[in-house]
Amino acid sequence: MLTIGMRVNLDKKKAETVLLQLIQLLQEKGVQVYIEPSVAEKTGLHELALPIERYPEFVKIVFVIGGDGTLLGIARQIAPFQIPILGFNVGNLGFLSEAEPHDLSDAVDRVISQDYYIEKRMMLQAELVRDGRVIEQGIALNDVGIAKGSFSRMINCTVSMDGNCIGHYSGDGVILSTPTGSTAYSLSCGGPIAWPELKTILFTPICPHTLTSRPMVLPAASILEVQVSAIHQEMGLTIDGQLGYPLQSEDIIRIQTSTFETHLIKWQERSFFQVVRKKLYGEIVDDKMGG
Amino acid sequence: MLTIGMRVNLDKKKAETVLLQLIQLLQEKGVQVYIEPSVAEKTGLHELALPIERYPEFVKIVFVIGGDGTLLGIARQIAPFQIPILGFNVGNLGFLSEAEPHDLSDAVDRVISQDYYIEKRMMLQAELVRDGRVIEQGIALNDVGIAKGSFSRMINCTVSMDGNCIGHYSGDGVILSTPTGSTAYSLSCGGPIAWPELKTILFTPICPHTLTSRPMVLPAASILEVQVSAIHQEMGLTIDGQLGYPLQSEDIIRIQTSTFETHLIKWQERSFFQVVRKKLYGEIVDDKMGG
Amino acid sequence: MLTIGMRVNLDKKKAETVLLQLIQLLQEKGVQVYIEPSVAEKTGLHELALPIERYPEFVKIVFVIGGDGTLLGIARQIAPFQIPILGFNVGNLGFLSEAEPHDLSDAVDRVISQDYYIEKRMMLQAELVRDGRVIEQGIALNDVGIAKGSFSRMINCTVSMDGNCIGHYSGDGVILSTPTGSTAYSLSCGGPIAWPELKTILFTPICPHTLTSRPMVLPAASILEVQVSAIHQEMGLTIDGQLGYPLQSEDIIRIQTSTFETHLIKWQERSFFQVVRKKLYGEIVDDKMGG
Amino acid sequence: MLTIGMRVNLDKKKAETVLLQLIQLLQEKGVQVYIEPSVAEKTGLHELALPIERYPEFVKIVFVIGGDGTLLGIARQIAPFQIPILGFNVGNLGFLSEAEPHDLSDAVDRVISQDYYIEKRMMLQAELVRDGRVIEQGIALNDVGIAKGSFSRMINCTVSMDGNCIGHYSGDGVILSTPTGSTAYSLSCGGPIAWPELKTILFTPICPHTLTSRPMVLPAASILEVQVSAIHQEMGLTIDGQLGYPLQSEDIIRIQTSTFETHLIKWQERSFFQVVRKKLYGEIVDDKMGG
Repeated sequence: MLTIGMRVNLDKKKAETVLLQLIQLLQEKGVQVYIEPSVAEKTGLHELALPIERYPEFVKIVFVIGGDGTLLGIARQIAPFQIPILGFNVGNLGFLSEAEPHDLSDAVDRVISQDYYIEKRMMLQAELVRDGRVIEQGIALNDVGIAKGSFSRMINCTVSMDGNCIGHYSGDGVILSTPTGSTAYSLSCGGPIAWPELKTILFTPICPHTLTSRPMVLPAASILEVQVSAIHQEMGLTIDGQLGYPLQSEDIIRIQTSTFETHLIKWQERSFFQVVRKKLYGEIVDDKMGG
Repeated sequence: MLTIGMRVNLDKKKAETVLLQLIQLLQEKGVQVYIEPSVAEKTGLHELALPIERYPEFVKIVFVIGGDGTLLGIARQIAPFQIPILGFNVGNLGFLSEAEPHDLSDAVDRVISQDYYIEKRMMLQAELVRDGRVIEQGIALNDVGIAKGSFSRMINCTVSMDGNCIGHYSGDGVILSTPTGSTAYSLSCGGPIAWPELKTILFTPICPHTLTSRPMVLPAASILEVQVSAIHQEMGLTIDGQLGYPLQSEDIIRIQTSTFETHLIKWQERSFFQVVRKKLYGEIVDDKMGG
Repeated sequence: MLTIGMRVNLDKKKAETVLLQLIQLLQEKGVQVYIEPSVAEKTGLHELALPIERYPEFVKIVFVIGGDGTLLGIARQIAPFQIPILGFNVGNLGFLSEAEPHDLSDAVDRVISQDYYIEKRMMLQAELVRDGRVIEQGIALNDVGIAKGSFSRMINCTVSMDGNCIGHYSGDGVILSTPTGSTAYSLSCGGPIAWPELKTILFTPICPHTLTSRPMVLPAASILEVQVSAIHQEMGLTIDGQLGYPLQSEDIIRIQTSTFETHLIKWQERSFFQVVRKKLYGEIVDDKMGG
Repeated sequence: MLTIGMRVNLDKKKAETVLLQLIQLLQEKGVQVYIEPSVAEKTGLHELALPIERYPEFVKIVFVIGGDGTLLGIARQIAPFQIPILGFNVGNLGFLSEAEPHDLSDAVDRVISQDYYIEKRMMLQAELVRDGRVIEQGIALNDVGIAKGSFSRMINCTVSMDGNCIGHYSGDGVILSTPTGSTAYSLSCGGPIAWPELKTILFTPICPHTLTSRPMVLPAASILEVQVSAIHQEMGLTIDGQLGYPLQSEDIIRIQTSTFETHLIKWQERSFFQVVRKKLYGEIVDDKMGG
């Protein structure tokens, strides 16, 4: 029997409605459904409660009802388990969420009949090294950012790849991004858009002081190190723009491709470029049409 | 008798040597010299002490020994008095400092014989308005920045000119710059280089989420307002990247051309473009040659 | 009696319909209307024919029915006569055309009752100097472009302002733009958006080989000179992207603010920023609301 | 016995001297040397003449004495034969040339003792399709450019990947680049710098009319098609900026990774980033030091 774990961002309007509709549709088809305990509490569906830690035992697919931000958080949590994720977009058009709330029944049918493919998205592993010891580590689906605070004007980043110095970057910081993250903050910083299934790490300086500092496309197999320095203490490391750690001068952030990947459920007929065109170019693209 | 006030950044190597040489050169020529009390203390030249507040009474010209950063701070302090400033650059090549440490004697002769011209640089006045009241105000020679902190991903800025909405900008923030500031942080954010004596306000979004958000060149006579909002509280206002004020959601920052100007002493034969070419293009330009 | 000269781009769909409606509306109000001879021929309205050369004698206002491109051409032709122009936009939203085809009657009433203001737009004068002689000259409302051809990779431009070298630019060429032209080709090349009534000349290198080459905002009172060189002969000078002249190595193009201005008729309530937001940001902006 | 074919650009100063020195050094070590017939004629070394067509039979390594441009041309010619190339840079610092003229003896020793590694650079194959037929084809080490001429303002490119529309690009054209070409024209157009051994195709619009049109990093395994259209006939296709073909409206340019690669001889201790830092950042980097 198919077992689906459902994660929902109840701050989003429509999210609860979509959740309840999906539960009903899935249960009608004989699918076992689980929701997180806090949501079970809130909705009174106590018998469906299952904490995410127990997903590896039971859950075959995760449904995420929210926006790209919600999905990012779940993806990091379940990265070690390789459980495929289907995102239901209840906010603005997203790059990660595939299903639209207006075709829930269709989405459920497709999932049950396995009429989809799995897109494997590389992730980044980040380690914060202080005085030679790893003191924090995390995994990112979008990006690892190293940035100054709002009052400080500049931080210095010395960036190396496999021990070779790439360069010294003074400015607001640097961002290391997966192809998945290339349409997020990296793009705002001037980085290129990368085809989501590529294996590559994008390195983009943020408002660099030196005008010749440009975005770089680097091998997925490389180990990147960023050593920060500044005369102030207002620097931070962020994971997917969601988790933050304060940095100190001389800290090293080591970034490499994670051994984990995010497995996204995708329909065959919608292309990445359609989303780019709709979301970035403002084009009106028919969802149902090929590319 | 010519009276010169001298301000020095003793953190810079060579600064104290240059200071003492200048004092000697000036005193030999019969110029009255003043230095700040803390420096008088440190150097034992107690009889030369004069606090900057008393400059309007006595001082005809200010010498600044330091880098562009030092000069920015002095320029803001003496803005109301229109006392001309001559910068002695003891760090990297600067845009504001005109005199080089290796020709101190020449610089002194020129100042005494008035063989220079005064470049008038516009300044910006910034007011921080909260709940309808102006709670802070400041004056900037370079720029007024409004930016997110290191952990927060995005702030929203609604920008208007003379009451007309320019647009909504989501991203790392926005920067309003004078032509003088156009070669500083604004340039790192993608803004254009402006001829320093122009009267215009440059508006540049910082890493904007919307790719169509572009730098703008706006009339010096306009009143610009930036209203910030964010779901977090990590936002700040900075003046010349040196003074900072925390911002709250719904704060309005009102920016307009100041009634004060900075008066810079400049030699005739060195052009702005020479500095641009040396500093930004890395070109080797002969200082002594016309542009 | 008010006399209006009408210029129309009949290649645009709807243009002839708009023309005929306007003629009828204007004649009903007792306005004397003229059209160009070729259009008079085509529409059978022979008695309305008047060549543009005779506009200075008779015509008080010019109506242009077309797109921004059509208006640019007319603006150059009538620049010496300072006759105000009202553009009727029959294509995509334009920056220069103020009136929309769906409110022709309203536009006519406003013109007759003088319920509008005149926006004065600076123009550029360009001279092509070869072997010390001016061999071509032209006037531009948008821009003066100097560019390589499709097969040649690079041209070199040495650019100076008032005799001072700005820099050497290798790449696809350079563009000198008015504020009006700042939303046209200059923007595609990375230039800033300038408030249309500013007096300034924008200089933007096109795909420069040197990454530090950045757009510049220069004084309207300056004389700019661009000397081109290349090992090939595929270089051209363009005026508003509409007129072209082949260039030879060592040619100098001299650009300065023209003594002529274009006088555009504008409604009070629509702001430049509304058009920017609609056209560039893809925002949905209500035409009738203050900006 | 090692056999080396030598190709030289005699337009470069020092090239002939370097050529003769290399011939002497190689012959002293018992290496069989060939030069192109025209150069044999010019230098009187008739017995060394060998046309490039006969390289596959005899030549094990090609020495190229010139700049990056010279090497690009040779690389295209010998692409099918996979003969390794060592570039001797006699112009400005290059990305492709590894050996410097001041250490010819060292370079020769290394080649003979095989103290080097081979860097395999992907190439692009371009086909020009008109009316359904391939009428031209070529191979590029750097890039395939599709661009307007100097007088025409805009061409339209509809770009697709594996049959899915990427988008419509109006502007000066588009450029498809290998990682090797990422530091050439693509960079001037705003593209990222790609690690040279990556397998990826970079797509960069040239001065796009739509501000949201951004550089893209695409899979090396994809088939890209660009269909051009314009109301004028001034469009061209270029290969490495060196070969050109006129284009007509509705032409399709099909680009994919070539089955051929360029094999570059590289020293172990010099990194790509050193060249980036020297050439683009203007940094002073010691050639002899690692990274």
